[in-house]
This record gives sequence, structure tokens and C-alpha cells, in this order.
Amino acid sequence: MVVAVSEVGRQHSAKQQELADALLGIAATRGLDQVSVREVAAAAGVSIGTVQHYFGTKDAMLVFAFRHVVRRTRARVARIDPRLPPRRRLGLALRELLPLDAERTAECRVYLAFAARAATSPGLAAVQEETLTAIRADLRQALAGTAGADHGRATLETEARLLLAVVDGLMFDAVTAPGTLAPAELEAALDTYLDRIAP
Amino acid sequence: MVVAVSEVGRQHSAKQQELADALLGIAATRGLDQVSVREVAAAAGVSIGTVQHYFGTKDAMLVFAFRHVVRRTRARVARIDPRLPPRRRLGLALRELLPLDAERTAECRVYLAFAARAATSPGLAAVQEETLTAIRADLRQALAGTAGADHGRATLETEARLLLAVVDGLMFDAVTAPGTLAPAELEAALDTYLDRIAP
Repeated sequence: MVVAVSEVGRQHSAKQQELADALLGIAATRGLDQVSVREVAAAAGVSIGTVQHYFGTKDAMLVFAFRHVVRRTRARVARIDPRLPPRRRLGLALRELLPLDAERTAECRVYLAFAARAATSPGLAAVQEETLTAIRADLRQALAGTAGADHGRATLETEARLLLAVVDGLMFDAVTAPGTLAPAELEAALDTYLDRIAP
Repeated sequence: MVVAVSEVGRQHSAKQQELADALLGIAATRGLDQVSVREVAAAAGVSIGTVQHYFGTKDAMLVFAFRHVVRRTRARVARIDPRLPPRRRLGLALRELLPLDAERTAECRVYLAFAARAATSPGLAAVQEETLTAIRADLRQALAGTAGADHGRATLETEARLLLAVVDGLMFDAVTAPGTLAPAELEAALDTYLDRIAP
């Protein structure tokens, strides 16, 4: 019986992820403000009632899709070879958060739209707070393990806040004003910063 | 006759600014996706036809309001005392871009919403590109004039991109996850960064 229930749970989750992918496709191409239960149902080829069955409300659907984007990014970071030197791993991990190719640009656009909407949605704000808190904890750990790093008078917490700001700011500037920052310029700026805090 | 035309122009502009303020009020409290010609008309106490007369389309209204926010922020920066030392002026100017009090937090939220929508709106993207290009030019000039600055191997352009990224990233993280970054922490992170590039 337990097996049967968990099988149902797995199917439920798979269907939710399929609907979340349909939602993210709409958000990436036409903008998050074009997302509705009706549009997601049409894009996924199911009825409105089906979408409502899996998510209940539009807000719950948005929160699920936001977590889905964050999970996808973090899964790529988790696949970085742990045998590489710490500084190299850090550079690769942070590159996963920048719009350096078509896939990451689409993801960054959608992430930005969700994060901007968090300002007026408590459910999305909770996901964003969890996400930033988790990334800063990872960065503190990565910075503590980086040989040769000199943080001067700054605490590790301030260093982690600054490093996340550099990456989020480069992402924000590149996604919102694409003509002003090419991928190679983003990587050069990131490496200039990393060289300074962890040569 | 020229005087009469320019008087009409001034009145036109004053009315547009009044409508833009109504739009920004809706965007700050309920979110940019709640903005419509109908809602702006209701908030400003005028007819839908009046809003259409002054702006033509909803897109033109959004572009005007986005420029209006950017102008307001830059006007505050322009009022900083030019007799202060360059490093102090730079610190004060960048503080105008951070959500350090209720006024700047409301402004940053609205700015973020416009910038996020720029990803799917060419009109808003043009304003955002102009804005970032102008701020980076100001930052290059400010950094060149900062005594004692050591930029290592980084060019002034890379330094300006990084400094704008730090400020935009701190703004982004603080506005989208308010519980994780207090105003004093934003200022401490900014000053840590400035101390490093321009002691």
C-alpha cells in the first residue's frame, strides 16, 4: 500500500514538473505576466481542470515553477567535479548563474521575472529568501576553503554577500540590458573579482 | 505663438508626470502587472480617454514612467555636494541606488519590475540600456578621479561594470529577499567593496 501511494506521488510530481516546464516556456518567450492557468493548460495540451487538480491555485503553480527553476540550476552546480581545485570549482559554479549561453539566458530571464514578482508575492518571496540564504551558505564554505584568499577586514558573511551581489548584479545587468554586456565580458568581470578575493 | 506652444508642452508634460506618478503608485503597492490604462485613469481620477490622449498606448505609458523613475533617482545623485572628496561623493551617489529607506525601497522595487519586463519589451529595454550605459560612464569618470585607487590589471571599464554589478546585485538581493539583507548590511557591503578598490 505504501508503495502504491508513493507511486501515485511520483506520478503526481512528474505531471507537476511537466506543467511547470510548460509554464516556464511561456514565461521565457512571452513573459511571466502572460502566464495563467488557461495558458499553461493550452501549452501542456491538458484541460484547465487538470492544471487546477495538480496545483490548486495560480500562486501555488508559480511557487512550484520557481522552485523548479532553482532546483535545475543547483543540479548543474552539484554536477561540477569535486576533484577540481576549490577556486576553479567556485568559478565554474558561479558561471552556472550567469547568462552565458541560450539555456542559461532563458533561465536567468525567468528567474529574474520570478524574483521581481517576489516583491508583491509572499509565496515567491519565501522561495527567493530560501534560495539566497542557501547560496550564501555555499559561498561562505567555498570562500573559507579557497587557499590564499585574503579577505582583509571583511567577514566571510560580508564576502559571501558581496560575491552573490556581483553575480546577481552581472546577471541582472546582462539580462535587462543585453546589448551592453557580452558573455565574454561577464566572464572577464567575474574572474577579475575572483582574482582579487582569492588569487 | 512659440511661447503658447511651449506653454502647452509644459502642461502636457506636467499631466504626463502626474499620470506617471499614479502608475508608479500602483506598481509600488500592487505590482507592475496590475498596471493598465483603466487602473491608471482610476488612480489619477481622470477618464480612460484622457490617459490615452496623453500616452497613446500602454507601452508608451510604461516607457514614460520608467524614464520618470530613472530621472528621479539621477536628480538625487546630481544634488550631491560637488565640493565633497571624490570617494565620499561616490559612496553617497551609490547609496541613492540602494533600498536604504522606504522611499528608495519603493523606487527600487518599481525599477526592478520595469527592468525585469525589459526582457520582453523592446521599448523598456532601450531605456534600461541607456540607463546602464550612462551610469557606467559616470562610474568610469568617478573611479578615474578617485585618489589612491589601485585597479590592478583591471581596466576602468571592467571596474565600472563590476561596481555597477555590486550595487545592482545588492539592490536585487535586498528587494527580492528583504529578510536577508538589512540597510546597515547593504551599506557595510558597499563600503567594504569601495575600500578595496579606492581606499
